[in-house]
Amino acid sequence: MLRSDHRDSKTLRSVQIEAGFSQYAEGSVLIKMGNTHVLCNASILEKVPPFLKDRAQGWVTAEYGMLPRATHTRSDREAARGKQTGRTQEIQRLIGRSLRAVFDLAALGERTIHIDCDVLQADGGTRCASITGAWIAAALAVNHLLENDVIDTNPLKDHVAAVSVGMKDGNALLDLNYEEDSSCDADVNIVMNGAMQFVEIQGTSEGRCFDRSELNVLLDYAQHGITELIALQKQALADQGIHY
Amino acid sequence: MLRSDHRDSKTLRSVQIEAGFSQYAEGSVLIKMGNTHVLCNASILEKVPPFLKDRAQGWVTAEYGMLPRATHTRSDREAARGKQTGRTQEIQRLIGRSLRAVFDLAALGERTIHIDCDVLQADGGTRCASITGAWIAAALAVNHLLENDVIDTNPLKDHVAAVSVGMKDGNALLDLNYEEDSSCDADVNIVMNGAMQFVEIQGTSEGRCFDRSELNVLLDYAQHGITELIALQKQALADQGIHY
Amino acid sequence: MLRSDHRDSKTLRSVQIEAGFSQYAEGSVLIKMGNTHVLCNASILEKVPPFLKDRAQGWVTAEYGMLPRATHTRSDREAARGKQTGRTQEIQRLIGRSLRAVFDLAALGERTIHIDCDVLQADGGTRCASITGAWIAAALAVNHLLENDVIDTNPLKDHVAAVSVGMKDGNALLDLNYEEDSSCDADVNIVMNGAMQFVEIQGTSEGRCFDRSELNVLLDYAQHGITELIALQKQALADQGIHY
Amino acid sequence: MLRSDHRDSKTLRSVQIEAGFSQYAEGSVLIKMGNTHVLCNASILEKVPPFLKDRAQGWVTAEYGMLPRATHTRSDREAARGKQTGRTQEIQRLIGRSLRAVFDLAALGERTIHIDCDVLQADGGTRCASITGAWIAAALAVNHLLENDVIDTNPLKDHVAAVSVGMKDGNALLDLNYEEDSSCDADVNIVMNGAMQFVEIQGTSEGRCFDRSELNVLLDYAQHGITELIALQKQALADQGIHY
Amino acid sequence: MLRSDHRDSKTLRSVQIEAGFSQYAEGSVLIKMGNTHVLCNASILEKVPPFLKDRAQGWVTAEYGMLPRATHTRSDREAARGKQTGRTQEIQRLIGRSLRAVFDLAALGERTIHIDCDVLQADGGTRCASITGAWIAAALAVNHLLENDVIDTNPLKDHVAAVSVGMKDGNALLDLNYEEDSSCDADVNIVMNGAMQFVEIQGTSEGRCFDRSELNVLLDYAQHGITELIALQKQALADQGIHY
Amino acid sequence: MLRSDHRDSKTLRSVQIEAGFSQYAEGSVLIKMGNTHVLCNASILEKVPPFLKDRAQGWVTAEYGMLPRATHTRSDREAARGKQTGRTQEIQRLIGRSLRAVFDLAALGERTIHIDCDVLQADGGTRCASITGAWIAAALAVNHLLENDVIDTNPLKDHVAAVSVGMKDGNALLDLNYEEDSSCDADVNIVMNGAMQFVEIQGTSEGRCFDRSELNVLLDYAQHGITELIALQKQALADQGIHY
Repeated sequence: MLRSDHRDSKTLRSVQIEAGFSQYAEGSVLIKMGNTHVLCNASILEKVPPFLKDRAQGWVTAEYGMLPRATHTRSDREAARGKQTGRTQEIQRLIGRSLRAVFDLAALGERTIHIDCDVLQADGGTRCASITGAWIAAALAVNHLLENDVIDTNPLKDHVAAVSVGMKDGNALLDLNYEEDSSCDADVNIVMNGAMQFVEIQGTSEGRCFDRSELNVLLDYAQHGITELIALQKQALADQGIHY
Repeated sequence: MLRSDHRDSKTLRSVQIEAGFSQYAEGSVLIKMGNTHVLCNASILEKVPPFLKDRAQGWVTAEYGMLPRATHTRSDREAARGKQTGRTQEIQRLIGRSLRAVFDLAALGERTIHIDCDVLQADGGTRCASITGAWIAAALAVNHLLENDVIDTNPLKDHVAAVSVGMKDGNALLDLNYEEDSSCDADVNIVMNGAMQFVEIQGTSEGRCFDRSELNVLLDYAQHGITELIALQKQALADQGIHY
Repeated sequence: MLRSDHRDSKTLRSVQIEAGFSQYAEGSVLIKMGNTHVLCNASILEKVPPFLKDRAQGWVTAEYGMLPRATHTRSDREAARGKQTGRTQEIQRLIGRSLRAVFDLAALGERTIHIDCDVLQADGGTRCASITGAWIAAALAVNHLLENDVIDTNPLKDHVAAVSVGMKDGNALLDLNYEEDSSCDADVNIVMNGAMQFVEIQGTSEGRCFDRSELNVLLDYAQHGITELIALQKQALADQGIHY
Repeated sequence: MLRSDHRDSKTLRSVQIEAGFSQYAEGSVLIKMGNTHVLCNASILEKVPPFLKDRAQGWVTAEYGMLPRATHTRSDREAARGKQTGRTQEIQRLIGRSLRAVFDLAALGERTIHIDCDVLQADGGTRCASITGAWIAAALAVNHLLENDVIDTNPLKDHVAAVSVGMKDGNALLDLNYEEDSSCDADVNIVMNGAMQFVEIQGTSEGRCFDRSELNVLLDYAQHGITELIALQKQALADQGIHY
Repeated sequence: MLRSDHRDSKTLRSVQIEAGFSQYAEGSVLIKMGNTHVLCNASILEKVPPFLKDRAQGWVTAEYGMLPRATHTRSDREAARGKQTGRTQEIQRLIGRSLRAVFDLAALGERTIHIDCDVLQADGGTRCASITGAWIAAALAVNHLLENDVIDTNPLKDHVAAVSVGMKDGNALLDLNYEEDSSCDADVNIVMNGAMQFVEIQGTSEGRCFDRSELNVLLDYAQHGITELIALQKQALADQGIHY
Repeated sequence: MLRSDHRDSKTLRSVQIEAGFSQYAEGSVLIKMGNTHVLCNASILEKVPPFLKDRAQGWVTAEYGMLPRATHTRSDREAARGKQTGRTQEIQRLIGRSLRAVFDLAALGERTIHIDCDVLQADGGTRCASITGAWIAAALAVNHLLENDVIDTNPLKDHVAAVSVGMKDGNALLDLNYEEDSSCDADVNIVMNGAMQFVEIQGTSEGRCFDRSELNVLLDYAQHGITELIALQKQALADQGIHY
């Protein structure tokens, strides 16, 4: 089976990472996975949310948005509708949890790393690209803190990256684009750390449920893709002179 | 390791199912899993959402809520705050998707089964109890349609039930209560159908990530619990004279 | 004239009071007046609203909600609509005022008794059942404070209970059910204390206005019903070993 | 007992009615009861709310607002806060119900009389002044329909007017101003029609509950005041050449 | 060319200024420019917005609203819709900026002059009438502070007034009414101080763009009108015994 | 006087226009004016707003947004706050009006060109860059309609472009960056068409009011800048093979 973009079933889309896309953010990355482009900007805020007041620890959180015409047809602007959709909230909660899984919040000190993931163009897999890009933006922001002697211990304990896998017509596929995502039978988003442990698994059957053996193939594919994404994260930081 | 409520690690909490709790809903069930009590009411609405207009199919959807004092300390009332939290939206989207996975929407005809899951008391696992109970409420509502000759083909293709599993101090646990849920290292909600296929998997690491072998044990535990829950669903319907 | 449920015009519906329905609230009561079932949970909050800050007194307030399928046909969920209806706000303001009329707020100390009245099933008279039940929940919460030596003076000065009366086809009726309520000419909700004084009167003509002599009969009926409800409140507390 | 404004306990404040205050509305009245000034504008809208579509009848409804600096100290603007308070909704529902009690909605035809009651200055009793003024605005709008031959039967069946009465230090008082209203023991708003029947009664104890005999005195006072207000309504219309 | 209301192209509508319209506000003015009537109430609040906390200066701000039936046909009430329109926000921001341009905020001290401009009747030019009236209300409030020795330096440095000008069928017109405003080719709102300097210019082409020479004529007309309005402001204050 | 970025007072910042930045929009342009970067995407929607239903004409409208970390410090996300600020609404209304001033809406047919202007990076002048870029995006979308024979008459009648000018320390400046904008005495945004006529003028004094002669210099500067911007618009289209 050849995919519409001539990829093999176990091949990622072409990945490009442009660090420093925005000049004001403490960490900024434009990540492109094929036609999915996400701008991830990490801001350092010298405050913590109220529930962490005086707890001697920091916080890492994320917000997610999609430009109205990131997609094939225009969607409503959430700011104009007056609220974020359930999907948006679900995604930004996922990004935040994934990042926090590899952070030592005490070492961060009483400050927040707030990561904005804004989808400039969407062709499937935006939440996974957001997580992979957000980690780089966070690492750049952490480097900014270390270089400026704001903190002296690196609070970032490990990598985190994500990829989607799915079953379509009985075949497992890695890194689905929009067309594949809309027509697949099952769609699983996997978030893993550098030790190849699970940070998050979100699997959803669409049309046809999937069994244990299918899940196992999907997990193999995901681990393969995430290994590659973590190597690309290392390279992107190395290009900035940061060795992690 | 003995659990705080003296259960074995692979044992469900005591489950009680009271059908017909509300007398007006077409399908009504109060499901109790230990101290977690969820009222699931299924309403038949003779209309479909706008995006399904004239598509010769029906819809199944869910809403979720928690009474302000369902929990140990009072939470704000969502209606008073003026919006549903991201958590609430995430859960009600999950319940709806899980139910639709076992429905033949064309056989349902142009109508909606709207399921309200309201948590009267919460001791962990409310989303899983909601799914398991919602299926029974939906089955009762479907039976109502069949008995009144509104439809002649059963649109319900299979069971669906859910349970949480988690890792705590290196041990796998089935059906976590609130205390276990707040202190565990990983929390995975599993939704399966009667053929023991996955409908949804939502796994989240909390504090410590989990590896592939741990995931495999958790999936075994979940399958064990869901098998039991499906038997209880069958029994609850049989008690109403419905053999499914 | 015999009523649809075979009651006499001056007879209450069957009343059942189940204390301790929720196990976490400081005071919890499920009150059933016929097919109207309201869960009243009283929470003790160790804070007061901003306008009472440093005024050496407490506060008693209430919120009211109705489960979407409490009624014959499903209503929208207020949390999903993003706001409470005018009717909901009117009712919860009424419950709060009624309770405060019998409270010595200084004796309560700087804390709030927050009562949630959630209608699980609705067959008319939900605001009156809420008030009658809320008083019991509040009394249980007060007893909790006294027993734990948080306060030493009982801040609850008297009973408060409520009932609806109405004119239908020229006849006065006590404790209207939904069918009677929707077809009556006048509907008056009466809230009284144990000294048979008025706490609140809310009378509304529907279709036909009512004159002074009709009002007098309605007030007689209400006093009769409230006398009985207060006896039931006393009994419910006595069953918990509380003599008020 | 002499009142702060030297009135007798059973005397209304000075009432002034200025018809045609706004030149665009089909019916417009500025009613002044002492320092309480309410602008009541009735608009004729050639549509009915959705729930009355194709029911061969019209609708009468009201909205209520208070200018931010109508009062001694500035209140928040409801449009800026983004929602109407519970009090506002309660009042506008009351005004609408009171007006509908004297309307033959079928005779009105499929149109709406929408009455806006905006308080320009507030010194107590704004809801009662709104009802009394709204009736005149509605009568002017009805006259506009009759004179333009839009309808041929007068849909207005009777007068409706309102006044507040209250107990203060054991004395009954008619038409309370703000100072009296804030310090009284009981506050009852009475709405009556021209046949001296009750349209609405809203009685609230504040501080001290009131008994049956006190209620009877208050009802006598209210009837006295409303008789006078209805005479003033007749005069205001007669000044416009309308004999009702 | 004679205008519909028989004015010359360079003549203001009849202006009436009624100081003290509301008796509670520290400064209150009803300004009428023809059929446009705006009530401007200035409140002195002994607090500043959070961003000015401890900055040893005050603040001047404005809110704008229009009664639903101020216009020929009824508009929705913003409080009922739950938000202010973009037009409302644009206007109230303009009024606030215009007033602040002539205030010495340090001399005002840590307090706010909050001006509410409520349009009772609208026939075009409501934002300009609001600014001209708001200045008088502010001056009255400042006088209140000076007379009560709350401040000792007058923080009001100059007059500010506003007028609209427009091009219609090739002719410049001063002070457009609603009919002219809806049919003109260009509409320019000019705000000037007493030194005939510009505070704000808001010019909008409607249908036909305007060139530099047309702009120059419009600016001449505006200066002519504003000179007259400032004289009327002086007179209005002088009538209250305030010489500015 | 040399400016911080070494520009002459009458020189635009470096302008770069990248057409086709987003691949899905019918017209897409990333416009950079120095460090201000705005993505302008034009979508063709085959519908018109309700108020234009069956009026045989189209509509052109715009929405504006700024990414949270487009600026030196992070701002709140409007979608998360649940509403657009007054500033955002003011700007998007301005962009829409400016574009409509050069459109023949009848020639567009019953469809909408909806332009989204999203600020990726902000260094002052974002509303002007949005207008200049939005015109190019609209022209590309119009070209798409013409090339696909959806319409046969070009509805775009002229160019429209915008620039800010301001007075700082007595000197006029063209195209202010953020630092200049925050410290200037007066800030005027000018929108002009290709015939050098005014489409919009929005002038605001900040700190010091400006007189007629200063305004004249500012208008000269603006005309100079807009002439250059229109030449750049022509070039950007020519680069896409479109000669306008």
